[in-house]
Amino acid sequence: MAQKRLGKQTIKLINPPSMIATAAVVGPKEGEGPLSKYFDMIQKDDYFGQESWEKAESKFLEEAVKRAINKSGINTTSIDYMLAGDLLNQIISSSFAARTLQIPFLGLYGACSTMAESLSIGSMIIDGGYADHVICATSSHFSSAERQYRFPLEQGVQRPPFAQWTVTGSGATILAAKGNGPYITCITTGKVIDFGIKDANNMGAAMAPAAVDTLVAHFKDTGRTPKYYDLIVTGDLATVGRNITLELMQKEGLNLKYNYNDCGCMIYDNEKQDTHSGGSGCGCSASVLNGYLYDMLLHGEIKKLLFVATGALLSPISSWQGESIPCIAHAVAIETILSEVK
Amino acid sequence: MAQKRLGKQTIKLINPPSMIATAAVVGPKEGEGPLSKYFDMIQKDDYFGQESWEKAESKFLEEAVKRAINKSGINTTSIDYMLAGDLLNQIISSSFAARTLQIPFLGLYGACSTMAESLSIGSMIIDGGYADHVICATSSHFSSAERQYRFPLEQGVQRPPFAQWTVTGSGATILAAKGNGPYITCITTGKVIDFGIKDANNMGAAMAPAAVDTLVAHFKDTGRTPKYYDLIVTGDLATVGRNITLELMQKEGLNLKYNYNDCGCMIYDNEKQDTHSGGSGCGCSASVLNGYLYDMLLHGEIKKLLFVATGALLSPISSWQGESIPCIAHAVAIETILSEVK
Repeated sequence: MAQKRLGKQTIKLINPPSMIATAAVVGPKEGEGPLSKYFDMIQKDDYFGQESWEKAESKFLEEAVKRAINKSGINTTSIDYMLAGDLLNQIISSSFAARTLQIPFLGLYGACSTMAESLSIGSMIIDGGYADHVICATSSHFSSAERQYRFPLEQGVQRPPFAQWTVTGSGATILAAKGNGPYITCITTGKVIDFGIKDANNMGAAMAPAAVDTLVAHFKDTGRTPKYYDLIVTGDLATVGRNITLELMQKEGLNLKYNYNDCGCMIYDNEKQDTHSGGSGCGCSASVLNGYLYDMLLHGEIKKLLFVATGALLSPISSWQGESIPCIAHAVAIETILSEVK
Repeated sequence: MAQKRLGKQTIKLINPPSMIATAAVVGPKEGEGPLSKYFDMIQKDDYFGQESWEKAESKFLEEAVKRAINKSGINTTSIDYMLAGDLLNQIISSSFAARTLQIPFLGLYGACSTMAESLSIGSMIIDGGYADHVICATSSHFSSAERQYRFPLEQGVQRPPFAQWTVTGSGATILAAKGNGPYITCITTGKVIDFGIKDANNMGAAMAPAAVDTLVAHFKDTGRTPKYYDLIVTGDLATVGRNITLELMQKEGLNLKYNYNDCGCMIYDNEKQDTHSGGSGCGCSASVLNGYLYDMLLHGEIKKLLFVATGALLSPISSWQGESIPCIAHAVAIETILSEVK
């Protein structure tokens, strides 16, 4: 049998699942950013016609899933599993969308690492032979996240310069056992890392060590070097976290200077859009992957992508109780040409 | 290749993972109930030496995981994945325990269905060849759950007669690629079902239709009848939900009268312990499975168990916003003799 396990934290997919269709649905602010032309839908109304931001967030997720399914040309009834999660308490955006969609549902929670977590489990389910089609999805909403994690929006609390802006949006990927790629080839599952940061506004700094831990494990387990990839993206570290990651990786002897970016640095024009350090939220890496990065893969602009979604696993209660922020990152290698996979 | 998929929602494990060790750690009230002798540890202090109920809940989970690992005789470093979730916002009990344990972590959220969800994904990961050992765990705590979902405990709100009592406790299972059983043989993954119940105190009635939906799918997909099993247990429907399940199953032409029980009906003596309809919470089915039911399987008192953990996927916010309660149930078939598996 071919080797499925590489080192301590990494697996190799023997029949790599294919990302046969994706969709990204975002809110108005994201639609004004530099990646606007790569999104499937830009909702002008951040309530999405719903009565609350929470219900709107669920609608974003449902819309992304439906659009991905439509683009794939397969029926909803042919999707074997839905793997989804989000930032809201008890992942209600995902559960409520799953109620409408009626696909067997496995709820996940990995905060902003959820897109990578869903692709990880989805890939194992497909490569393992348990499904032909799996939908992986996640979402976030600026207004529902801010009022849950930080302050009521109406209070108008001033944001520190290192704060990030939660993306309003959702991304969905359909993974299939058969297809022409891009393919999920390797997965590195992260451990929970906590360097003691307690400020819920300073997520980039909190999450960077988790990204580094997973990146180091990935390169060690696979024997690859950063150069192997055309592009390495982390989830939503934004400017502050991205710089910390570059520095910490350099100390590990791994140079990311030439092919590394962060979805939180890509989705907004921080200066023009007043988004401070950059984007965050499950919807950040999800919409960048399923919009912009998927387009680059399809058009051959990149052939080898390492997607490392990062999550800050704090809750409002743990913050109030003075706990530091446990973080996690999962890495998913996405490649367009299987013959080149090493 | 052997058939891995049965019908729409069910899979069959070709090399069924073995439950090589389990542990159940509970609080004082559970320790006074009829299953007390089956628990690995009964904590007299429901704070477990911590400063808050939330931190205590995390400690319960950590303790259950550590005890299961100790009983298995393998090293923590040989556990390839930790799959866990709980009821708290952003599953902090699980994330904080994963921070201590340093095992690659995939966070789940399925409310009280989490024990079955973790066994489902864990089994696919092992049978698929991606891991030798996976730990599956979940927890709940009466005091942290009540104040999160319902009212501050200090308020002394009267509980309606159909209310359930959230179990303080945790259960953990180590699944292994090699072992002498009990084995996970089949898994049926549920859809989100919502019959419109909005009362966060009436969880049994809300969850019963989800249990029925998954049970019906399981029997249809596998071609088995309820008689195939020595025992069928649902997660935490308690008395009210159990009776609804019996009645709805009868309408489906499936008689559960002779071999069906519910973990919420088993863990407390409702009359003596003033627990109204019975137990609930992720820790309910987790501690009953990993304590009592595992013991019955090991001693041959039952050979074929269908474990159907049920989850109410509500959040405090969705309740305040007037939403009904979406529910889910996943079924896991556990058998001691592989030659008898049909």
